[in-house]
Amino acid sequence: MNNNLGIIMKFSITVFVFTLIFFSNNIFADNIDGRVAIKVSSKVKIQILEDMRKNLTSIQLIVAALANEDFEQVVKIAGELGSMDHTEEAMMRRKSLSEEYRSLGPQLHMGFQSLSRDARDFGDVQHSLGQLSNVMNVCVACHQGYRLEVE
Amino acid sequence: MNNNLGIIMKFSITVFVFTLIFFSNNIFADNIDGRVAIKVSSKVKIQILEDMRKNLTSIQLIVAALANEDFEQVVKIAGELGSMDHTEEAMMRRKSLSEEYRSLGPQLHMGFQSLSRDARDFGDVQHSLGQLSNVMNVCVACHQGYRLEVE
Repeated sequence: MNNNLGIIMKFSITVFVFTLIFFSNNIFADNIDGRVAIKVSSKVKIQILEDMRKNLTSIQLIVAALANEDFEQVVKIAGELGSMDHTEEAMMRRKSLSEEYRSLGPQLHMGFQSLSRDARDFGDVQHSLGQLSNVMNVCVACHQGYRLEVE
Repeated sequence: MNNNLGIIMKFSITVFVFTLIFFSNNIFADNIDGRVAIKVSSKVKIQILEDMRKNLTSIQLIVAALANEDFEQVVKIAGELGSMDHTEEAMMRRKSLSEEYRSLGPQLHMGFQSLSRDARDFGDVQHSLGQLSNVMNVCVACHQGYRLEVE
């Protein structure tokens, strides 16, 4: 009976250790990322990722337009990104995010506003590129500092 | 006894329905994303995201360099992105990914190689911007088509 108990105990400890090894891999992997987790619902995460893909596509289109010195196109695309989404849903979504993270949105929108305005007023590729580089610094800062986590 | 069984059954069904409602929200949210899931380990996901953040930072630096007509810097940064990571770890990581998804990596690297070479040979902002725009089209295609999912 004691012998059986010993075997069960040993087996339990082995299972426990293997379970620990299995899960610690994921826990450790999560920790080494080092970015601040922004807790959002699954729906909000999908919406934010969709918005970011739109930003990426627009930046690609701005680079393509600058390659062709097509300032009309730069004014249009940057202008669209310069205006904040004021629908009730977007306002509620923003309300659920941390203040520091939330502050990056307006920086991005103001950057695109300047880019659009100056492309219209000056039509200067080097100047527009400088502004685009500043806007992209906001993207870099946000991606380096934060990650979205479904709550 | 039969009465008790009836209560337990009703309770079980209620729990089952509520569990279904709770989880269906996430399942539905996942479905509306519409992108193909690439199954990776937590460790590989962190590594890929880190590589992508490096790409983003490098593209921002290339835009900044082109704003200053600093072609030496463009050659350097694009050159670094143009060379594939041939460490054993990176090769194993790539092996675990789907063929279609995997084909996007070399496209990106070849694009950066051309950008680096032509920045050295021609030093022409418009030409480099056209090439950068082509490289960014690969980023757009990949982000629109795929998402990483921890297996």
